[in-house]
Amino acid sequence: MYRTHNCGELNIGNVGIEVKLSGWVQKSRDLGGMTFVDLRDRYGITQLVFNMESEAELCGQARKLGREYVIQVEGVVAERSNKNKKIATGEIEILAKTLKVLNASETPPFTIEKDSDGGDELRMKYRYLDLRREEVRKNLELRHRMSIEIRNYMSGEGFMEVETPVLIKSTPEGARDFVVPSRMNPGQFYALPQSPQTFKQLMMVAGFDKYFQIVKCFRDEDLRADRQPEFTQIDCEMSFVERDDVLDAFEGLSNHLFKAIKGIEIEGRYPKMPYDEALRRYGNDKPDIRFGMEISELKEEVSGKGFVVFDSVEYVGAICAEGCAEYSRKQLDRLTDFVKKPQIGAKGLVYVKCNADGTFKSSVDKFYSQEDLKLWADKMDAKPGDLLLILAGDTGPTQKALSELRLEMGRALGYMDTDEFKPLWIVDFPLLEWNEDTQRFHAMHHPFTSPYEEDIELFTTDPGKVRAIAYDLVINGVEIGGGSIRIHNKDLQKKMFDNLGFTEEEAENQFGFLMNAFRYGAPPHGGIAFGFDRWVAIFAGLDSIRDVIAFPKNNSGRDVMIDSPSKIVQEQLDELFLDVKDIDK
Amino acid sequence: MYRTHNCGELNIGNVGIEVKLSGWVQKSRDLGGMTFVDLRDRYGITQLVFNMESEAELCGQARKLGREYVIQVEGVVAERSNKNKKIATGEIEILAKTLKVLNASETPPFTIEKDSDGGDELRMKYRYLDLRREEVRKNLELRHRMSIEIRNYMSGEGFMEVETPVLIKSTPEGARDFVVPSRMNPGQFYALPQSPQTFKQLMMVAGFDKYFQIVKCFRDEDLRADRQPEFTQIDCEMSFVERDDVLDAFEGLSNHLFKAIKGIEIEGRYPKMPYDEALRRYGNDKPDIRFGMEISELKEEVSGKGFVVFDSVEYVGAICAEGCAEYSRKQLDRLTDFVKKPQIGAKGLVYVKCNADGTFKSSVDKFYSQEDLKLWADKMDAKPGDLLLILAGDTGPTQKALSELRLEMGRALGYMDTDEFKPLWIVDFPLLEWNEDTQRFHAMHHPFTSPYEEDIELFTTDPGKVRAIAYDLVINGVEIGGGSIRIHNKDLQKKMFDNLGFTEEEAENQFGFLMNAFRYGAPPHGGIAFGFDRWVAIFAGLDSIRDVIAFPKNNSGRDVMIDSPSKIVQEQLDELFLDVKDIDK
Repeated sequence: MYRTHNCGELNIGNVGIEVKLSGWVQKSRDLGGMTFVDLRDRYGITQLVFNMESEAELCGQARKLGREYVIQVEGVVAERSNKNKKIATGEIEILAKTLKVLNASETPPFTIEKDSDGGDELRMKYRYLDLRREEVRKNLELRHRMSIEIRNYMSGEGFMEVETPVLIKSTPEGARDFVVPSRMNPGQFYALPQSPQTFKQLMMVAGFDKYFQIVKCFRDEDLRADRQPEFTQIDCEMSFVERDDVLDAFEGLSNHLFKAIKGIEIEGRYPKMPYDEALRRYGNDKPDIRFGMEISELKEEVSGKGFVVFDSVEYVGAICAEGCAEYSRKQLDRLTDFVKKPQIGAKGLVYVKCNADGTFKSSVDKFYSQEDLKLWADKMDAKPGDLLLILAGDTGPTQKALSELRLEMGRALGYMDTDEFKPLWIVDFPLLEWNEDTQRFHAMHHPFTSPYEEDIELFTTDPGKVRAIAYDLVINGVEIGGGSIRIHNKDLQKKMFDNLGFTEEEAENQFGFLMNAFRYGAPPHGGIAFGFDRWVAIFAGLDSIRDVIAFPKNNSGRDVMIDSPSKIVQEQLDELFLDVKDIDK
Repeated sequence: MYRTHNCGELNIGNVGIEVKLSGWVQKSRDLGGMTFVDLRDRYGITQLVFNMESEAELCGQARKLGREYVIQVEGVVAERSNKNKKIATGEIEILAKTLKVLNASETPPFTIEKDSDGGDELRMKYRYLDLRREEVRKNLELRHRMSIEIRNYMSGEGFMEVETPVLIKSTPEGARDFVVPSRMNPGQFYALPQSPQTFKQLMMVAGFDKYFQIVKCFRDEDLRADRQPEFTQIDCEMSFVERDDVLDAFEGLSNHLFKAIKGIEIEGRYPKMPYDEALRRYGNDKPDIRFGMEISELKEEVSGKGFVVFDSVEYVGAICAEGCAEYSRKQLDRLTDFVKKPQIGAKGLVYVKCNADGTFKSSVDKFYSQEDLKLWADKMDAKPGDLLLILAGDTGPTQKALSELRLEMGRALGYMDTDEFKPLWIVDFPLLEWNEDTQRFHAMHHPFTSPYEEDIELFTTDPGKVRAIAYDLVINGVEIGGGSIRIHNKDLQKKMFDNLGFTEEEAENQFGFLMNAFRYGAPPHGGIAFGFDRWVAIFAGLDSIRDVIAFPKNNSGRDVMIDSPSKIVQEQLDELFLDVKDIDK
């Protein structure tokens, strides 16, 4: 055994005992006749003392130690004169008697400290060094604790974790599958699952009743800032349930995690907000409800006064920024620039300052009287000192732009406290979504989502209005998970495939095994899947999921540490009956 | 909510209450004025009673129910007159008041019962129906319980579960990688991990100290009876440990599982048997030590008596089958046929019967006197009534054949009690293995395994004799896991690659990131990986891992249920810059 204790556990109660420690040299400093070395491991930092007077040779060796050397030391625990109350071991030090270098280290390419001097690219290349930093390690410790809590909670609630296959079948629908050529079946491919959706439904047909799995999923698509080609889902499914049974079950999981991990009791039930209402009030189907600043529709109030912009558009909406009437020209210009950015897409920004003296000043004073402006302010419950920010255009894009503006103002005004959590359910999503490119309806979630029974007749008259029994869990403006009650009737499933434009052959070829399973007694069932990476990131107070993944890939899907993906040798391609096309063409 | 209770929880204490149950029709029978339906779900079976006299219409509906219909019933819990003490709900029944068919079922292709009438192929195709059988479901429940126990135990011991990537880098060494073409990086491929070996070592370099993961691994090779292209490992690694620290830690895990899952206390420490000794005593590096019948070497005793077969061979070995002296000609012929099978490979079998009267009868009486045979029997501690079975040939193959014969006799004599468990460690494996095909040494485990320090000098004189600090956990003749202390010194690692015939470029290209990591303070470390599927199978008393996997693949690597692998469309190949060669050529 290379140690009797780790570097985080010795304290004043251990003074006088002989110990053996191993770890990494965090730093060392020579003070006159003494050399102090901070020895680090996963558990903490312990101070070692080498005495030049009494142990000259040993101290001489200690002075040669470089950063990140791996060493082993024997010595006696002593009380420190100069105590550090900030760390658990801060009241003691080890008077070193022996020193052994277990492994030397070259000078690392960046400092292993809270604020490292390494850039992103360098730290990703040397990820094993970046992982030594407490800040990075803590995220993975949190991830581990959350996974243990989730599994024990779910298991306690009667859910069984079942491993579904990773080598499955490719389906041309939806986002792109990674495929895997099979050597034993030349010319044929497996696919990696984008989710275990069909398998968990088969588990329900199999009578497993309550299933869950923390499972890797895969998507070969262009990576946005917060996407990874492989990511982890908490995948769940239940039988003999209606929507609210599912919501109750997973509100339970969520509350358990808040309590066990964050020490927070969420009060009351999570609000359930229909999709339409979320768009109307927040411009967005994953509203951050830590703060108000809701959107007001003003089309009626602003029309007919000769302002062509407002008169000609489909939609005019506004938010009220409390206490911002004093915003300067420059601040307002910055907001205008913000909403005009291509990813926000507004044409311009109209403001109304509700002055402290009860008057109004707006960028459209030419068209509207003080009374007009007062009407708007009253509708929005604006008080003197507030600032109204108004956007106009097509309904969808303008609501979306208002949502972005609202979040921008929320950030600016400090409304987004990372220690406050406001979960809610978004419900009643549309079942189908019109796709301009293909000129047909696509499933908004996936083709197994059940419509409300009373909406089924709309399939023939107004398919876009059919509501799905689908739901998302949203926390602080982040979609943490989503799910639905599934279709369990083979005729309805067939109708759904018809509506989505599948030929019978396509449906049979891609989902035949599920349709087949439905012939032998499928129970009513539904479920949900949570983005585990994202949930951990939210609890860690981080914006990106990359920081909660041990070995993430970059935006091109590359692992720069191991330099993957990479070319493979011709023999390997030959065995797979594959040729790589000339890429330069 | 579709139910107030499940089908396994109502008992005599619930008599009189109104309940709602949902589940599958296991079977129904009409007895005069009554119809009895066994309603099944994951939790059990509850008997429903429909009364033709009082509820004629309802009972009429019930008589139309087919097997595997999904139904919902409301009724009152009543005491049964005809109690079934074998099941938890056997003292009650439900007097049905309403009946609703939630989903009909076609007649399933095989019976959903303990002894199903469905063949293997059919049950695999309809796996979701096979999973409804209690016997199959119980294996997956066991798997779930074991995974929960493992995770909580490991977490309690300070191990952190860290997810390592599934999309990694292909290495031409060892068994075959599955590769995954990257759309975003044309002409380049990821590989699926055969194990997270290098990543867990990087976790140690990163200072994670104690890592574990229950993780899917992949191997694209011809499938033996008990192999699957995707399988699950319990992967573990520790820092600052020597061999016995690792063995202690995982003996703890093993003992915990025996206790928590099987209710068994394993007495004392697990024996540690060197590889050489295991071969000598059991002919095999994963001996089943539930019984003795050890191999005795007889070359010296049998030589020089004119029997050319024994005189000319390298090795003569024997086992003693207790109380088998009365074996008939036919029984002995069958054993001879057994050892001559190609997969056993012996040329013939020599027997010596130790008769009850103290005389001996052998198949080589022509060459050996009664005194000769007594000498053999004495060496083997054989008693009157025992049977000696002798094989001769080259050492390795003959030991292996004796091992098979020993196991065959152990089975025949009922020595292999599936409720008895005898774990042991096999230690001191050879580091290198000579490969006749390539005419060079290969790593017996993998190139990161550390040799014993005192054996390093043998590298230049007798590489085959270098012992590895490697170990396997063997339970009842099955290798459950294996691991080693790793090389943590970059110079020794380089020397190892040299000895394995890697050029510097190959080593750099394949393992550069690990070699690089070793430059920045790698701690001494070691670990182990267990075959989770196999461990579950052993605890379930099953021979094949296929029965503990929810959706296994067949011997050709096919999932016959979803019909995968399969062809993919040309557009998908084009996007991946791939062509499939003409396979018929």
